Amino acid sequence: MDNRPAGGPMFRNRMPRYEVLSEDAMAALDKGWRRLVTEIGVEFLDPRALDLFRDAGQRVEDNTVFLDPDFVLAQVAKAPSEFDVQARNPEHSIHIGGDAMAFGAVYGPPFVREGEVRRDATMEDFRSFTKLAQSFPALDSAGGVICEPSDTPLDSRHLDMTYALQTLTDKVYMGNVVSGINAADTLAMTSILFGSREAIEETPATISLINCNSPLRWDDRMLEAQFEYSAAGQPVVLTPFILMGAMSPVTIPAALVQQITEALSGIALSQLIRPGTPVIFGSFLSNIDMQSGSPTFGTPESGLGLLCTGQIARHFGLPFRTGGGLTSSQVADAQAGYEALMTMMPTFLAGANWVMHSAGWLEGGLVAGYEKFIVDVELLQMLQVEFTPLEIDEDSLAFGAHAEVGHGGHFLGAMHTMERFRTCFYRPLLSSSENYERWMRNGGKDAADRAGEIYKKRLEEYEPPPLDDAVRAELEEYVIRRRKELGD
Amino acid sequence: MDNRPAGGPMFRNRMPRYEVLSEDAMAALDKGWRRLVTEIGVEFLDPRALDLFRDAGQRVEDNTVFLDPDFVLAQVAKAPSEFDVQARNPEHSIHIGGDAMAFGAVYGPPFVREGEVRRDATMEDFRSFTKLAQSFPALDSAGGVICEPSDTPLDSRHLDMTYALQTLTDKVYMGNVVSGINAADTLAMTSILFGSREAIEETPATISLINCNSPLRWDDRMLEAQFEYSAAGQPVVLTPFILMGAMSPVTIPAALVQQITEALSGIALSQLIRPGTPVIFGSFLSNIDMQSGSPTFGTPESGLGLLCTGQIARHFGLPFRTGGGLTSSQVADAQAGYEALMTMMPTFLAGANWVMHSAGWLEGGLVAGYEKFIVDVELLQMLQVEFTPLEIDEDSLAFGAHAEVGHGGHFLGAMHTMERFRTCFYRPLLSSSENYERWMRNGGKDAADRAGEIYKKRLEEYEPPPLDDAVRAELEEYVIRRRKELGD
Repeated sequence: MDNRPAGGPMFRNRMPRYEVLSEDAMAALDKGWRRLVTEIGVEFLDPRALDLFRDAGQRVEDNTVFLDPDFVLAQVAKAPSEFDVQARNPEHSIHIGGDAMAFGAVYGPPFVREGEVRRDATMEDFRSFTKLAQSFPALDSAGGVICEPSDTPLDSRHLDMTYALQTLTDKVYMGNVVSGINAADTLAMTSILFGSREAIEETPATISLINCNSPLRWDDRMLEAQFEYSAAGQPVVLTPFILMGAMSPVTIPAALVQQITEALSGIALSQLIRPGTPVIFGSFLSNIDMQSGSPTFGTPESGLGLLCTGQIARHFGLPFRTGGGLTSSQVADAQAGYEALMTMMPTFLAGANWVMHSAGWLEGGLVAGYEKFIVDVELLQMLQVEFTPLEIDEDSLAFGAHAEVGHGGHFLGAMHTMERFRTCFYRPLLSSSENYERWMRNGGKDAADRAGEIYKKRLEEYEPPPLDDAVRAELEEYVIRRRKELGD
Repeated sequence: MDNRPAGGPMFRNRMPRYEVLSEDAMAALDKGWRRLVTEIGVEFLDPRALDLFRDAGQRVEDNTVFLDPDFVLAQVAKAPSEFDVQARNPEHSIHIGGDAMAFGAVYGPPFVREGEVRRDATMEDFRSFTKLAQSFPALDSAGGVICEPSDTPLDSRHLDMTYALQTLTDKVYMGNVVSGINAADTLAMTSILFGSREAIEETPATISLINCNSPLRWDDRMLEAQFEYSAAGQPVVLTPFILMGAMSPVTIPAALVQQITEALSGIALSQLIRPGTPVIFGSFLSNIDMQSGSPTFGTPESGLGLLCTGQIARHFGLPFRTGGGLTSSQVADAQAGYEALMTMMPTFLAGANWVMHSAGWLEGGLVAGYEKFIVDVELLQMLQVEFTPLEIDEDSLAFGAHAEVGHGGHFLGAMHTMERFRTCFYRPLLSSSENYERWMRNGGKDAADRAGEIYKKRLEEYEPPPLDDAVRAELEEYVIRRRKELGD
């Protein structure tokens, strides 16, 4: 079952936020990032960025910008605390910020797994995952690079991916950030889909992920993309990419201070590029295994860091991105289930506004897993129900049902039950509560086996959302022309 | 790795509580239970209970007691808000209430599962699970009926189980509640272990589970056991047993009102039996699948109910029991992983004081699972780390590490890292972060396979805690004598 009707409103988290930092703790973190931007500074590997900061009165030495914390806050204050992002189907447009939570699929894996098979991702996989994301109302976006299609030419791959996202879904999609050229192509194709560049500058139509090369360095290619998107008024997610122990100190407070420093410095740059352009405070925060050096996910440290991140972003009045269904597991097993939830429940407790990697993440992000995609959609659906406040009124208190049933009886046939039995409880997509005998009769399938059946059925049943023929033709023409120009 | 040293202090949850009920909501629930006790009343199928309530001025008709809400609150006020329970190894004694959280293994399954095999539980299984509970510091108790040993005579089974709990662990154990006779035997054996009846009346040494036959009925056999334990000053967990849709109305607020009514009425009885005797506000709250009638666990509704339960228990100033690693799954798969955590994380957010079913619960509680036991211990260990507040100070802010590493470097060799790398992050018991190649070389084992290896190794390495020979002899003598008297 889908928990939300197709085309229904996006999820709003009206439950309380779980806040774990005291005022003193927040003050200590504040002191920390102020010291870091001032004394260590942040590297920007793009002369245009350095010029903007220098012109704004900041001290620049080589590639390092030493920032005045109050200047940073003044830039941050120019960013909107909430904004809309339009989808080509207006029913799928989303809001970013406040109590709105939007969910996108996994982003970036070079490999896919279906069942026992792990292999290089292909364009066909990319399309399949895009279709799955379209088919589940719990997801607001297919994301961007759901997997890296290794069977398409590298230089023009972004055109194929963007075209697939634009045509196979009618939901919000992410912009390509491999280079400034890719970003410009994404903007051009988005302008075609939404009618004009003006239309998307008026209300943004892409979200793009700009990762920091943590610690404290913004790389040239990412900055190129940021310049394109911010200049066009498209939101960018400025994301410190921190595996504690490798890209930050091993202590969570130090990682949080670094995260603030990096995110705010990137946000300040966006505001210098175009004051008022929308931004999202990004966080990708986990840790490595100090014995092996492997990245680990769904850890206690990442959960705690995630809860703090929400509070920090609110402290700066910014919408934020964190969370997902992260796991180190190779397959959709018990570990994948609990690690995904160990990240996803704090994501809801923190009230993250833009949640990447919400479905399909496996093997530390190296693999897009088909079965795992279904596990994650189940988690999303459950949490969207769980984080909906109770309605307490005469009707839900059901005194009449007690008067009807009395002591030691059962409520199965009570009037109050009969009126509500179809919709009263969440109906699972994947979870089984079959008893042993029935479960055995049905083949004794574990959750991964059942998830395999579900995604295949969903793909069979997939129907593409309608798209104007002229627009489709213009997009195709663009892809063909640009592929030629790029030499593929 | 174990997250806590053997013999270390019990877990204290010093993180904030996640409170989801507004004042208005709590007032509505308050109004609800007051109406229920007054107008519908509660059945007590024991003439002694009816006499006690009648003598205390409550209206009794047939087996139903119509309670004055203020009388109920006056009784509840006599119960201690916190108390200690002693273990025979003082290092394993526990505190119930406040920020203390104690964890016991699964309770009640007639079946066990190891790998592909599901079969009737035996006394040997009971001993094995008891040994596992002893071996993990994350668990404070083996619980009570970890599984129902079907190969021992029914009438004297409680003697064998109690003896195993007393000798194979030196942690707190639960009392048998099948009948008043069984309770009396448990008390006699506990008096032997702790030296005298006075010694356990001074500081209790058992905890016993008294389940309500919901809705609104306390059965004769459970009440017999309650009379024994409360008279001896041993804590009882008065637990409404509610699967919404069957034992309560389908709406969560109605289930909460019923839960308050049942728990408080049972607690009032305990205080009439022996004023001041320790009690625990119990909750076992989930729902059925309205299509099949099957019980379901780890549901959004149960999670939300659990969060409310904590707040309600605090409202009445009582320690409370809820939570566990509940799941409907047949095997230790992804569903088992996420459903267990879907219950266990709210358990920590609510700050439950006594957590039954913390390890080994499978198949809706019908099965004690060996692999699932290990999955659950991993979850417990992770959550005990995650729910430990951050220490934010100069040292953890690690400015020096940033000064050392600078921009774009890594922290693997930094002084700050070197000083902390052994203990800085949680080290998993079960979770793997091996890369694909290494994981394949090591056999490509999923979490359930690895859990199977872990529990077998733990059982091999098990060492019984020391016990005085004279005490052991006296316990054995008691078991032999009583078995004869009971005709087995």
